[in-house]
Amino acid sequence: MASNFGNSLRVSIFGQSHSPAVGCVIEGLPAGFAIDFDELASFMARRAGGQGRWTTPRKETDAVRVLSGLNHDNMTCGAPLALMIESSNTRPQDYDNLKHIPRPGHADWVAHEKWNGHQDGSGGGHFSGRLTAPVCAAGGIAKQLLASRGVAIAAHLAEVAGIADEAFCARELDDASQAQLAQQIETMAAMGGFPTLDDEVASAMLSAIEQAAKEGDSVGGIVECVSTGLPAGIGGPMFDGIESLIARIAFGIGAVKGIEFGAGFSAARMRGSEDNDPYQVQDGRISLAKNDCGGNLGGISTATPVVFRLAIKPTSSISIPQQSVDLATAEQAELVVRGRHDPCIAPRAVPVAEAIMALGLLDAWLSFPAQDHGF
Amino acid sequence: MASNFGNSLRVSIFGQSHSPAVGCVIEGLPAGFAIDFDELASFMARRAGGQGRWTTPRKETDAVRVLSGLNHDNMTCGAPLALMIESSNTRPQDYDNLKHIPRPGHADWVAHEKWNGHQDGSGGGHFSGRLTAPVCAAGGIAKQLLASRGVAIAAHLAEVAGIADEAFCARELDDASQAQLAQQIETMAAMGGFPTLDDEVASAMLSAIEQAAKEGDSVGGIVECVSTGLPAGIGGPMFDGIESLIARIAFGIGAVKGIEFGAGFSAARMRGSEDNDPYQVQDGRISLAKNDCGGNLGGISTATPVVFRLAIKPTSSISIPQQSVDLATAEQAELVVRGRHDPCIAPRAVPVAEAIMALGLLDAWLSFPAQDHGF
Amino acid sequence: MASNFGNSLRVSIFGQSHSPAVGCVIEGLPAGFAIDFDELASFMARRAGGQGRWTTPRKETDAVRVLSGLNHDNMTCGAPLALMIESSNTRPQDYDNLKHIPRPGHADWVAHEKWNGHQDGSGGGHFSGRLTAPVCAAGGIAKQLLASRGVAIAAHLAEVAGIADEAFCARELDDASQAQLAQQIETMAAMGGFPTLDDEVASAMLSAIEQAAKEGDSVGGIVECVSTGLPAGIGGPMFDGIESLIARIAFGIGAVKGIEFGAGFSAARMRGSEDNDPYQVQDGRISLAKNDCGGNLGGISTATPVVFRLAIKPTSSISIPQQSVDLATAEQAELVVRGRHDPCIAPRAVPVAEAIMALGLLDAWLSFPAQDHGF
Amino acid sequence: MASNFGNSLRVSIFGQSHSPAVGCVIEGLPAGFAIDFDELASFMARRAGGQGRWTTPRKETDAVRVLSGLNHDNMTCGAPLALMIESSNTRPQDYDNLKHIPRPGHADWVAHEKWNGHQDGSGGGHFSGRLTAPVCAAGGIAKQLLASRGVAIAAHLAEVAGIADEAFCARELDDASQAQLAQQIETMAAMGGFPTLDDEVASAMLSAIEQAAKEGDSVGGIVECVSTGLPAGIGGPMFDGIESLIARIAFGIGAVKGIEFGAGFSAARMRGSEDNDPYQVQDGRISLAKNDCGGNLGGISTATPVVFRLAIKPTSSISIPQQSVDLATAEQAELVVRGRHDPCIAPRAVPVAEAIMALGLLDAWLSFPAQDHGF
Repeated sequence: MASNFGNSLRVSIFGQSHSPAVGCVIEGLPAGFAIDFDELASFMARRAGGQGRWTTPRKETDAVRVLSGLNHDNMTCGAPLALMIESSNTRPQDYDNLKHIPRPGHADWVAHEKWNGHQDGSGGGHFSGRLTAPVCAAGGIAKQLLASRGVAIAAHLAEVAGIADEAFCARELDDASQAQLAQQIETMAAMGGFPTLDDEVASAMLSAIEQAAKEGDSVGGIVECVSTGLPAGIGGPMFDGIESLIARIAFGIGAVKGIEFGAGFSAARMRGSEDNDPYQVQDGRISLAKNDCGGNLGGISTATPVVFRLAIKPTSSISIPQQSVDLATAEQAELVVRGRHDPCIAPRAVPVAEAIMALGLLDAWLSFPAQDHGF
Repeated sequence: MASNFGNSLRVSIFGQSHSPAVGCVIEGLPAGFAIDFDELASFMARRAGGQGRWTTPRKETDAVRVLSGLNHDNMTCGAPLALMIESSNTRPQDYDNLKHIPRPGHADWVAHEKWNGHQDGSGGGHFSGRLTAPVCAAGGIAKQLLASRGVAIAAHLAEVAGIADEAFCARELDDASQAQLAQQIETMAAMGGFPTLDDEVASAMLSAIEQAAKEGDSVGGIVECVSTGLPAGIGGPMFDGIESLIARIAFGIGAVKGIEFGAGFSAARMRGSEDNDPYQVQDGRISLAKNDCGGNLGGISTATPVVFRLAIKPTSSISIPQQSVDLATAEQAELVVRGRHDPCIAPRAVPVAEAIMALGLLDAWLSFPAQDHGF
Repeated sequence: MASNFGNSLRVSIFGQSHSPAVGCVIEGLPAGFAIDFDELASFMARRAGGQGRWTTPRKETDAVRVLSGLNHDNMTCGAPLALMIESSNTRPQDYDNLKHIPRPGHADWVAHEKWNGHQDGSGGGHFSGRLTAPVCAAGGIAKQLLASRGVAIAAHLAEVAGIADEAFCARELDDASQAQLAQQIETMAAMGGFPTLDDEVASAMLSAIEQAAKEGDSVGGIVECVSTGLPAGIGGPMFDGIESLIARIAFGIGAVKGIEFGAGFSAARMRGSEDNDPYQVQDGRISLAKNDCGGNLGGISTATPVVFRLAIKPTSSISIPQQSVDLATAEQAELVVRGRHDPCIAPRAVPVAEAIMALGLLDAWLSFPAQDHGF
Repeated sequence: MASNFGNSLRVSIFGQSHSPAVGCVIEGLPAGFAIDFDELASFMARRAGGQGRWTTPRKETDAVRVLSGLNHDNMTCGAPLALMIESSNTRPQDYDNLKHIPRPGHADWVAHEKWNGHQDGSGGGHFSGRLTAPVCAAGGIAKQLLASRGVAIAAHLAEVAGIADEAFCARELDDASQAQLAQQIETMAAMGGFPTLDDEVASAMLSAIEQAAKEGDSVGGIVECVSTGLPAGIGGPMFDGIESLIARIAFGIGAVKGIEFGAGFSAARMRGSEDNDPYQVQDGRISLAKNDCGGNLGGISTATPVVFRLAIKPTSSISIPQQSVDLATAEQAELVVRGRHDPCIAPRAVPVAEAIMALGLLDAWLSFPAQDHGF
C-alpha cells in the first residue's frame, strides 16, 4: 500500500498531475461536524499557484467538490468523505519532451523502473506536487476539527536559500513566551502573502528566489510548523507515536528530505541536563518547564507545543540544461525542462506542513484509548 | 495500533524493561531462508550493554530464543517467526523512586496520562531502550536476508558531543568513491569496538562521553547509516515510500529526534542545479551520476546507496539532580536518577540504525509489485 | 476502519444513497492493464435497476467516470484508480417519512445510535444497496484482470423463495463435470436476463417474486458463485486466507446473512471419509480428485473451483405496514415504506457475488509471496 | 499478512503444531484490567484435549505464560500483552509418513505449493488445530473484559452427526425468552462436560462419535454462539461491521466451512414481513421486538443477542486408508493417518467460537467512535 495512511482517521489520496481530477477519501471523521468550506478554500488557496511573484504562473483554482460524506445539514455523517478537485488549465504539451527523458531530481525514471514503463509520466504523474492539493483538503478539514477542540496550528518559512526567519517561540514556556507564540500563530493565520514572521526576511528571501529564477535555477528551504492546545497523553509508544505518524505523512511529499522535532538535530549536540525538560507544578497541574522535546516524549503528547521542521529540497524542475538519458534509446541526452515551475516550492509547502501536522495529530487523538472514554 | 509496523513484512514488538521477556513476531519472511544465529548473536551483542567503558555495567546477554517459524531444517517456513529474549540481571529496585516521580526526558509522565496510571513505569516500561533488542533481532534477520540478495548495510557514529567522524563516501558515485564506501562498510562490519570509521575520532568521543559521565551528565550524537546493492524501482509513491517506511520505524525509537536522507537539511540550502542528480549511461545501463537524493526519489529506490542520518538525543537518565514532580502528591520534587545508564546511547543506536534500514528496505522489497514478478 | 478492505489490492468505497456520487479508490492494481470499459459497463448493468419486471423502476445508468489511475494509453499506471458514479434520478422525497421512523431490517436506527443522529438516513445513506455499484466497479475490473490470467468467474441464483436452480457442477472434477461447469459459466456470462441456469426455474422464481410484490412483500434467495483457473498456493494461513478475505467483503453487503464454501453446512453432516478430497496424479501433476473443500484448504487455493454460496435476506423495504418508532418522540409508529424497491434483491446480488469473488482472489494472488517470484 | 487481525484490538498469532511454543501478541487491550488467570485456565481447558472419551488421548496442559503486558499489580498496562504456551508431550514421529504424503482435507499440499516445500508440515504446522490455543487465550481475555462490561458469551454444540441440540433461545425477545436464554448461558458456563444444552442429546452425539471412531472415521458438527449485553451502535458499515469482523476470524480456523448470523440461510427462504424485526418502545427505550437479524443490522449492533452458527467439517485426519500422492515421487500413494486425533473436532470448537465472538465484539467496541466519548 502506498497512497493512504492513518489508523482511526484513514486518508486515501488519488490523482496524477494531469488526470481528470485529484482527490481524497477520508474515513473516520467524527460525525456531526460542520466543515467551513470557505475557510477550506482559503487554506487551499495558500497552497495553490498563481498567487504572487514566487510561484508559477499556472493558476489552479483547486475548487473542492464533495462527492459524499455529508448529511442533509451539510455536516459529516460518519460515512467516508470523498473530495474531488477537477483539473483544468493543464498544458501537457509542456511535458512532451519529458516522456522519454527523465528529469533529474524527479521520480520519472524510478517510476518507469517500478511500473515497467506504464507509469503516467506526464507532469510527474502520481508524484506531482499537485498531489499536495488533496493532502491539504484533508488536512484543512482536520485542522478545523482540531481548532474546534482548541488546537491551533501554524507554519512559516523558517529558511529559504540560507536566509532565516525568526523562529516560533515554542521552546520556552513562560507566560511571555506563550503569549508571543500565540501572537505568531495569529500572524501567520492572517497572512495572505509570503509566509514569514519577519517582513524584511520575506523581501530578502524573495530576492534570492528571483535571482535563482532569473538564472533558470531554484532554491530550497525549511518549513517550521507548530501546534498548541493538544492535551497530554495523545499518541502512543513505538511506531504510531506522534513523531512516527507525522514523519510518515511528511515523507509522502516528494520534496521533503528531512524532519526534526523540538531540538531535533541540535539535541545531538546537547547534554542531557540541557535537553531534558524539567517538570513543574502550577495550581496543582503538572507541566513541562520547557519544550526541547517538541511536544512529545516517546511519541505521546506532553501538552506543550508540537514543533517540527521540514527540509524542502530545491525545485527539481529547472530550465538550466541538465544531463539525462533517453529511455527509448538508452543514450545520453541533454534536458531543458520547459513549463511553469516554482523557483522555490517551500512557500507552498507551508500550508502542506500544517496539513501534515493536523492529519497526524487528529489520527492520534481519534485513536486515544476508548476505554478511558467509556468502554 | 502502536507497536507493530510493516506491510508485506509485518513486525510486532512486545516487552517492557522488566517484563519476563521482550521479543517480536515477524510475519512475511520468505520461506526457506536459513538464519545464521551466530551472526545474529554478534549483531545483537553490538547493541547490548556491558561491552566497554561507554556503556552501562548492566550486562545483558540478549540470547534469542525461537518460539516458532522454523521448519525441521531450521529454515524459515512461512509461518510467523516468534522470537523471545528472556530478561535477567534486572535490578528493579533501582527504579523504586521513579514510580511516582517521572524522569525528565522520559515518557514516564505521558504514559501515566495515557493509561491512567496503569502503565508499567519500571525502567521505562514499554518505552525502555531495551525494546531495541527485539527491533535488532528482527532487523538482524532482515539484514541477513538482504545480504543474501547482495544488499550491504552499515552504520557508524557520525557525531558525538559535536565531534565528527569521517562521513560515508556515499554522495559521489565514481569508481573510487564506490570502492571507498565498500571499504568503509567492510570496516564497520568487522568493527568490534566503538563504531567510528576514524580511530582517533573514537578516542575523542570516548573522552567526551567519560567527561559527561563523570559529571553525572550525558551526551547525544548522530548515527549515519548506508546501504548498497538495492536495485532500482523498490518502494512506492507517497506514504509507503522508502523514506516514509524508514522514518516511521526510526521514530519508534525514543531517543531519535530527527532524520534526514541524502543531502537532507543541507539540501534546503542548495540550488536545484546542485542538488539534482544527473543521469548517465554506462554500458547501456542507466544510473545516477551522484547521490544527493540518498538512494531514492519519490520514495522509490534509485539503485544508489540509501543514506540516512539519525539525531540521537543525550540519554535522559542522568544522575545530576533534576526538577520533577511527585505524581502522588502533585508537588514539586527533586529527582536523582540512580541505576545503570549509558552516558551516551548513540553507540548502541548504531546497530539499531542498521536494523531500521534493513526492516524498511526488506518490507519495501517484498511489496514490489507481484505482477512484475509473474502474476 | 470500515469502508475499505484488502492487503495488496486495497479498495476504499465511498458514497451514500443520495450523495452526489458513489465511487471507489483502488490501490495496487498491476500497471499496464487495459480495462475494457464497455465490458465493465455491461457488468455494471447487470447490477443496476430498471432491467426487468423483477427490479425497481428506478433506472440508474451507473456510468463509471475515471478520475485518476490511467496513463496516456488508457492503461493502469500504478497510481490509485479512482472511479466515480454520479447520482441522478433520485427522489429523496420518497424517504421523507423515514427520517424519524427507522425501517425494520435496515440500519437506520443503529446508524442513529452510532453517529448520534448525524447519519445520512436518506435512502439508507452509506448502508444503501447503491454502494454495491462501486463494489461492482472495482470487482468488474478485478474480474477482467483475473480473466486475462485464465480465471473465469460466474454466479447464479441458486435459490429464490425456496425454489432451487440447478447447481454449478463444481464438486465433481472428472472431465465431463469440468466441461459441464465450463458450459455453465459460459451460459451465465452470456446471460442478459434473469440469472438462473434453468429457464423454467427462472419463470417459477419470477412468479414467486411477483406474487410477493403484489402483496407488498419481498422474498430472499441464495447466490452461488464459482471461479475456475486459479492456480494452487494462492492465499494464506489463518485470517487472510481465501475464505477470510471473501467472507469479510461479503458481509460488507447488508443483505448477506450467511456464507459457506464448498460443502459448507452440509459438511457438518458428513463423515471425514466422505468430505476429504483425495489426491490424484495425472501426467505427473498432482490434483484433487473432487472438490468438497470449495477450492481451498486452510485458506490456500487448491487449483479446483472456488465455490461459495451467499444467503441473501428478503428486501427489508416493503410496503406492508410495519411496527416502528418515531425517534423524535420515542413513541410507537406505524411505517409504510414508499419508494421504488426490489421485491427481491437476490438477482442484483449475482454480479455483486462475482465482484466479491474477484476482489478476494485478486488480493490473495497479488499477495502471493514475492520471494517465490524473484525477491 | 495472514496471522493477525483486528483494528483497535490487534491480535497476532504464532506457532506450529510442534514448534517450541504457540502464542499471541495482543495490542490495544484497555489498561488497568486484572485478568483472572484461573478463569482463563478453565476456559483454555475446555479447548484442550484429554478431557473425555470424545477427544484425543494427547493431553495438552496449555499453561499460559505471560511474557509482557502486565504491570506490577498484574494488571494490563497498555503495552502489548504477549502470551506463550510451551509445547510438550508431542510425538512428531507419528507424522513421519506425512512428510511426503499430504493428508486429504488438510493444508499439507497447498502449503507445500505456497512455500515451495519449506513449510513446516509436521502435525499440520501453522495450520494445526493447536493454533486455536492462542486464539482461545486471546479470546478468553477478551471475554473477561466484555463480561466486566456486562456482555455474556456462550456457545454449544448445535449439531453433531446430524443430531441436533435444542437451540439458544435468542430469536424471541419477550421476557420469558430472555430469561431462558440467560439460563442457557449460565448452564453452558457451568458446563464441564460435553457442551450441549440437552443431556440426552449429548449421549446420542457421543454414541455417533464413538461409532465413527470405531470405524476409523470422523464426524462434523455445528457450533452455535450467542452474546448478550452488547449496547446498540457498536460496529460499523461495510467491511468492518460485526459480521465481517467475526467471519474473518472464524474462517481463520481451518475446520470452519460456513457461518451464518441470526436467521442466516433460513432468511433466504423468508419473506421480508417475516424476517424484518419490528421496533418497539418500552419505558421510552427503543428496542427490537425480535431478533432474526442476529444482533446487528448493516454491521452495527442492535442491543439484541449476537448469534452465529459455524459449520465445522469432520476431522480430516482419519485412520481409514485414503488416496494421496507421494510428493517426492509424484506417484499415487495410499495414506493411513496414525497419531492421536479427535473423531470430532466440534466439541473443542465450542470455546473457540466464544473466543471468536469475544475478539470480534471487543475490537468493534474499542473502535467505537472516540468523538462520542470525549474527543
